[in-house]
Amino acid sequence: MKHYLSINDIDSVSEWVEDALTLKKDPFASEKLGKQRTIGLLFFNNSLRTRLSTQKAALNLGMKVMIMNFGKDGWALEFEDGTIMDKGNAEHIKEAAQVVSQYCDILGIRAFASLKNQEEDAAEVVINSFKKYASIPVLNMESSLSHPLQALADAITIEEYKKSVQPKIVLSWAPHPKALPQAVANSFIEIMQLQNVNFTITHPEGYELDPKVTKNSRIEYDQDKALKDADFVYAKNWSNYKDYGKVINQDKNWMITQKKLGGAKFMHCLPVRRNVVVEDAVLDGNQSLVIAQANNRTFAAQIVLKKMLETLK
Amino acid sequence: MKHYLSINDIDSVSEWVEDALTLKKDPFASEKLGKQRTIGLLFFNNSLRTRLSTQKAALNLGMKVMIMNFGKDGWALEFEDGTIMDKGNAEHIKEAAQVVSQYCDILGIRAFASLKNQEEDAAEVVINSFKKYASIPVLNMESSLSHPLQALADAITIEEYKKSVQPKIVLSWAPHPKALPQAVANSFIEIMQLQNVNFTITHPEGYELDPKVTKNSRIEYDQDKALKDADFVYAKNWSNYKDYGKVINQDKNWMITQKKLGGAKFMHCLPVRRNVVVEDAVLDGNQSLVIAQANNRTFAAQIVLKKMLETLK
Amino acid sequence: MKHYLSINDIDSVSEWVEDALTLKKDPFASEKLGKQRTIGLLFFNNSLRTRLSTQKAALNLGMKVMIMNFGKDGWALEFEDGTIMDKGNAEHIKEAAQVVSQYCDILGIRAFASLKNQEEDAAEVVINSFKKYASIPVLNMESSLSHPLQALADAITIEEYKKSVQPKIVLSWAPHPKALPQAVANSFIEIMQLQNVNFTITHPEGYELDPKVTKNSRIEYDQDKALKDADFVYAKNWSNYKDYGKVINQDKNWMITQKKLGGAKFMHCLPVRRNVVVEDAVLDGNQSLVIAQANNRTFAAQIVLKKMLETLK
Repeated sequence: MKHYLSINDIDSVSEWVEDALTLKKDPFASEKLGKQRTIGLLFFNNSLRTRLSTQKAALNLGMKVMIMNFGKDGWALEFEDGTIMDKGNAEHIKEAAQVVSQYCDILGIRAFASLKNQEEDAAEVVINSFKKYASIPVLNMESSLSHPLQALADAITIEEYKKSVQPKIVLSWAPHPKALPQAVANSFIEIMQLQNVNFTITHPEGYELDPKVTKNSRIEYDQDKALKDADFVYAKNWSNYKDYGKVINQDKNWMITQKKLGGAKFMHCLPVRRNVVVEDAVLDGNQSLVIAQANNRTFAAQIVLKKMLETLK
Repeated sequence: MKHYLSINDIDSVSEWVEDALTLKKDPFASEKLGKQRTIGLLFFNNSLRTRLSTQKAALNLGMKVMIMNFGKDGWALEFEDGTIMDKGNAEHIKEAAQVVSQYCDILGIRAFASLKNQEEDAAEVVINSFKKYASIPVLNMESSLSHPLQALADAITIEEYKKSVQPKIVLSWAPHPKALPQAVANSFIEIMQLQNVNFTITHPEGYELDPKVTKNSRIEYDQDKALKDADFVYAKNWSNYKDYGKVINQDKNWMITQKKLGGAKFMHCLPVRRNVVVEDAVLDGNQSLVIAQANNRTFAAQIVLKKMLETLK
Repeated sequence: MKHYLSINDIDSVSEWVEDALTLKKDPFASEKLGKQRTIGLLFFNNSLRTRLSTQKAALNLGMKVMIMNFGKDGWALEFEDGTIMDKGNAEHIKEAAQVVSQYCDILGIRAFASLKNQEEDAAEVVINSFKKYASIPVLNMESSLSHPLQALADAITIEEYKKSVQPKIVLSWAPHPKALPQAVANSFIEIMQLQNVNFTITHPEGYELDPKVTKNSRIEYDQDKALKDADFVYAKNWSNYKDYGKVINQDKNWMITQKKLGGAKFMHCLPVRRNVVVEDAVLDGNQSLVIAQANNRTFAAQIVLKKMLETLK
């Protein structure tokens, strides 16, 4: 049984990227693989791309899809062990995960970071509890700490558009009016570290991500220096990691402009705040890859589901 | 590529009606046409008939269906160009429409008139923005100004029940406690104008619809005169067009009664307020076609989708 | 045409249980039976097991599934006859049920007891109105008074785990912080009465259920006496029937503990409040059947749908 919870669950990024690009040429080639297989997609948070692309990927593989807005349509879940459940939560994750496992062959879970309790977010309580109690493979559709379907789509997109063997790729923090999770940045960093690229992270001082994620990736606080000669610029906001979940900087100078971009390709996971994270000219110009990235979400999900299906007995 | 946004997208009403009636006899005849095709149905407003009948029509054609309550499940959309998106709206329509286009082959959109801003409603901002930025055909599941799937179902129903070559058809305004859009009335008027019928509109003075829609259709303010010798009476409330979106008349005398109906067939798009728009005796009698109309929603959607599918490469 | 509204719609419990167990061994054996058939699942209340297991059962039979959160996605329904509908409710059940019947072959309805108006709940207004006006078979996915899919799953589970011809089965009331319906208890009692079992109901004095349901089933107010030598203990809270819908007892001594359970198997319909209804040790031990019961929801629904499909022309 094969979970897909983080970038670590990819045994070879380059192989998976190649496999995804092969599959993209003929998306229905494996439509018998998922016959009589059902995926349950449980959403604890809003979703557009993940919801539709994962569903599409499963349908391309011939699977049946059951979708639930778990928080709204089901019962409020209790995650603590040993609780006397006489308050608002009606169902314990132990039962929920075991029960749902019996109706599905693969389980997709989307549960964002709360950004309120760093310890709980770090523990990935929701998805790890499903992993712990489910008897079927679990697919991460964005958890507190990671968004590995997005990162795989990003790697596929870079493979399609790169013009040199070792492109220069920059992940640049960008301003945002709201506090956002670190998941997308984390997974992008992790997948970059596994590839033959020249990778730089740039963000305002104080906005350091978890050092267990960034490891020895180059961090350059001067955005201009970081962006110099970049082939790909990936913009993404994240809220503060140290002063956890806070928005301590909204410096508009960090917005990606056409001038800053130079000749690089522009990347973002979407949804994107226009003229806050990046100016219109970039998104509306021909250096933007954001639509291509979103398209590759289908094929990232499809290669992951294909590999998960192949391990089912 | 063929959109279905208004009655104007029908090249021949009589042919489409005939095709729909043929298809109704054997709804699964084209179930291979939609194989490996996916329709995305995006709802910005509540729906019963449209939601189920459009879904059913797509399934009859062998399509996959992905449904989203867009406002609740996805991200709040920004429609203005050039905005600095630092407020509530998280995603711009430019990205949303392009992205969704990549997961689907046809896109259905339901977005009612706000009834607050006449200019915005007249511009059909939501559906026209999807049309503008989507790379796939767009299906109108009721927009600010029109509801062409309903009107086509109405035309199919009239064809089934008419007893003369040129039946007399009356669209009668009816009272309603809430402000409702003009979309259903508009599209019904438009499809009547394209057919060989004796057509009259009746409503209280001051409740004139957009003259660009009513054109030279006969308007008769005296409901009794209008209804005389009618073969079909279509009741429908709409809020005021001039004093835009207001309810300036709730005169109960405009309710359709069995007595007013005479020997005519009764039509309404549903949902209908019993004993406000029309009295129970009419709906519960055998002159009511409202259930037949709702049934024909499936076949209206199916003929439209069939024609859209046939234009896909 | 065959409805499944209550245990009374089962002609032979033992045969249906056997049929379900046969079908469980090869769930896809009848996947052609539901071809070109559509089930509509309309939810007026939250659901996890019922939503997923009924959907799964229909998919196993090759059916198409259309799901609606009726209250949220559609229109507020009016159930009164003769009302002047000038208030909040936009659509009358008469139209809604007839309309939906035209888009589906079978209609599943979930509508809980309000616990506010005993007379209305007793009349099963929602599901009985659908039954009255729908032109297709109606499936009870939990109504005010009964939950026959759950009870059938329970009977299947008991058949799988029983070790004697006539096992001793005890339905024990359990405390709960909220007022819950009597539906699960009612249907469990009804299905027990139709089987060759030694059946006892235990609850605090004053918590008697409808005597038309309990009939001459043994009621024992002393929980210890009731549980003695039990083979199966089914715990379930229900709110008061006489002082209708009230929570008049939260006595923790009624919680099922490992000690009380003895050597019996433990059953509950889920979701269950841990350490309120039953202690962790029971649910986490190997005498608990709650996960097996939830699994059998699929096969209970599947045998019911199979029998309903077989009666369709």
